[in-house]
Amino acid sequence: MSIIVQKYGGTSVGSIEKIRDVAQRVIEYHKQGGRMVVVLSAMSGQTNQLIELAKEIAREPDLRELDVLLSTGEQMSISLFAMAVKSMGYDARSLLGFQVGIRTDQLYGKARIHDIDTSRILKNLEKNRIVAVAGFQGLDEKNNITTLGRGGSDTTAVALAAALRAEVCEIFTDVDGVFTTDPNICSKARKMDSISYDEMLEMASLGAKVLEIRSVEFAKKFGVPIHVRSTFTKERGTMVVAETKDMEKVLVSGVAFNKNEARITIRNVPDRPGIAAQIFDPVFQAGIVVDMIVQNTSADGITDLTFTVPNADYNKAMTLLNNVSQDIGADIIGDENIAKISIVGVGMKAHAGVAQKMFQTLSRENINIMMISTSEIKISCVVEEKYTELAVRSLHDAFGLENVTPET
Amino acid sequence: MSIIVQKYGGTSVGSIEKIRDVAQRVIEYHKQGGRMVVVLSAMSGQTNQLIELAKEIAREPDLRELDVLLSTGEQMSISLFAMAVKSMGYDARSLLGFQVGIRTDQLYGKARIHDIDTSRILKNLEKNRIVAVAGFQGLDEKNNITTLGRGGSDTTAVALAAALRAEVCEIFTDVDGVFTTDPNICSKARKMDSISYDEMLEMASLGAKVLEIRSVEFAKKFGVPIHVRSTFTKERGTMVVAETKDMEKVLVSGVAFNKNEARITIRNVPDRPGIAAQIFDPVFQAGIVVDMIVQNTSADGITDLTFTVPNADYNKAMTLLNNVSQDIGADIIGDENIAKISIVGVGMKAHAGVAQKMFQTLSRENINIMMISTSEIKISCVVEEKYTELAVRSLHDAFGLENVTPET
Repeated sequence: MSIIVQKYGGTSVGSIEKIRDVAQRVIEYHKQGGRMVVVLSAMSGQTNQLIELAKEIAREPDLRELDVLLSTGEQMSISLFAMAVKSMGYDARSLLGFQVGIRTDQLYGKARIHDIDTSRILKNLEKNRIVAVAGFQGLDEKNNITTLGRGGSDTTAVALAAALRAEVCEIFTDVDGVFTTDPNICSKARKMDSISYDEMLEMASLGAKVLEIRSVEFAKKFGVPIHVRSTFTKERGTMVVAETKDMEKVLVSGVAFNKNEARITIRNVPDRPGIAAQIFDPVFQAGIVVDMIVQNTSADGITDLTFTVPNADYNKAMTLLNNVSQDIGADIIGDENIAKISIVGVGMKAHAGVAQKMFQTLSRENINIMMISTSEIKISCVVEEKYTELAVRSLHDAFGLENVTPET
Repeated sequence: MSIIVQKYGGTSVGSIEKIRDVAQRVIEYHKQGGRMVVVLSAMSGQTNQLIELAKEIAREPDLRELDVLLSTGEQMSISLFAMAVKSMGYDARSLLGFQVGIRTDQLYGKARIHDIDTSRILKNLEKNRIVAVAGFQGLDEKNNITTLGRGGSDTTAVALAAALRAEVCEIFTDVDGVFTTDPNICSKARKMDSISYDEMLEMASLGAKVLEIRSVEFAKKFGVPIHVRSTFTKERGTMVVAETKDMEKVLVSGVAFNKNEARITIRNVPDRPGIAAQIFDPVFQAGIVVDMIVQNTSADGITDLTFTVPNADYNKAMTLLNNVSQDIGADIIGDENIAKISIVGVGMKAHAGVAQKMFQTLSRENINIMMISTSEIKISCVVEEKYTELAVRSLHDAFGLENVTPET
């Protein structure tokens, strides 16, 4: 019999009633013969409550102890889930990170999984038990509790599916699957039947918050098929799988957007070796992730440097860069009202003309492109934030994404 | 340098502010050179909240999973405590049951400690860290989480003190120490400087709820001195220690009482071999603890049997015994309005006349004695509940307990 790993997020286990619903649902799969391993997040809101508590105790809570505190959330949800299953007459067992042997590095708050010991899970499955594993948590080599960071339960589920050679890793969420774009913005958005790991990575990192990026990287590395689907229906969702020949026929798979970045331009930068390093060094040292760096061609030994940073880091970055600018005699302009619009698709590797179609489409709507960046399977344009919805809708139309087999 | 184990109960860590106060207090001891191991309970009220949650999920929550759930309470308090200490500039580390290696049997909800691995605690103490250990929790041999039952943190603290060969185990609570009787009933009640393990066991099991019984048994077995003292003052409390010659000079150390028992009498019991077994068998099988069994001398082949049971089990016991009584043709009388009054003291081993003084004292106040039971170091009388306070005060006076060296 094949093993199925299912992950339910915080909203799916947000109340006693919902935990019971999930238990009922898992029991149905179990009755159909599946050997069920269920990964749960903390009940919705709880992780934030615990963080608040920690901040009441200490302005900057110790990271090791914060992980000890935060990991109680998943401990609660899996024990309550196992109680629910048992009260319905089926056998279940909750397992914490230390009991499963989910080994991670020692980066508290953002640890990475190194290894999983599957023996205890397998023993419980052999006894016909439903196994509930705490998401988000692991153990470093010195037996300290670690957590995997926001959305870490997705990673736990995929890593377990890989280690257990599960048939599939089903990620249950509050949406029906992965859409060609955000249905709240574009009524023609269509749920995709399948998407490749690489496309999903681009969609995820560009703001389609269905799956945590690291879990997709993990799934790609180990070839774990992910099924993203709704907790509230029985409909098939979207399969995230390795690229197939079929997929390459589709030029563009989806349109993503991200309003959470700000643009910074440094003007009148003396164009000499080492100047970029000098400018970015304090920003990198502060741990700020810089995206989409563009440097203009130099004129008269002077150049411009433009890039984007997360909105959350904008003020910090501006302060750091103001100091540097003064040192080198440059000046600095910032803009928080921007959006990054991206088209994503493995098919565009093999086709020319996709970029042109994107630029023409935006031009037709009088949307000015402020920055461009490309990769093998995506093209991103920065535009004024107010054009976000118009840009997304017109690109969705232009590439025919409402049809199951889009135009080329 | 000597190791000091301190235990703080739920009310002592009942809020963020109180956890900070405890951190401050422990740091002061640390600065004076003590190697501090701190055992914390869950924040007050939390364990009950978690039990409520479990009962919402399942009428009879699975015991293994209940322990997984309940153990989150102490996990929260020790991590918050360690954060507080670190924010005050001192090093601290929280350790859970599985990290310390507190090994127990597999009796979920009332596990007993078998073994403690002190190596990790000692390593942390060597690094000059304050070590915070989660009370109440352990790990069975299959790495399942267990809990030690109500008041289990006292046992954790004493067991740690024994394993670490600590100088003392300090139990911080919301009273100043162990009193000769309840100060709420008898204004002359005096805080004792010291009390023997055996006396403490009698006082504890008779209703003076300062220390959990098992922790005293543990302390006696391993000769761990316990210091019961207040979280809110710096005053010396009461030492619970091995019996000394000095103690034997004192006839009676304290007066305890317990209103939480009910009396059951079975009349017209045919006096034949095996009848007691037949009567008590269903009661024992239901897990009801029977105390103070008295059987009258038989007359005409008919006898009476009287005993006490906890109030909480009274209705259940009456139902079970009604069935038996009908079978054997006996009848049954119950009384919930009783109290057990006891005088306790290691000194009474060597002295006659103590019982007589107790009976005379109660008689002088016109208090009728309904049942009597004695042990080497205590005499208990069951009286009507309404006489509790009068009985306690008159016995406290009669044995001169308000004086540091009581009369003989």
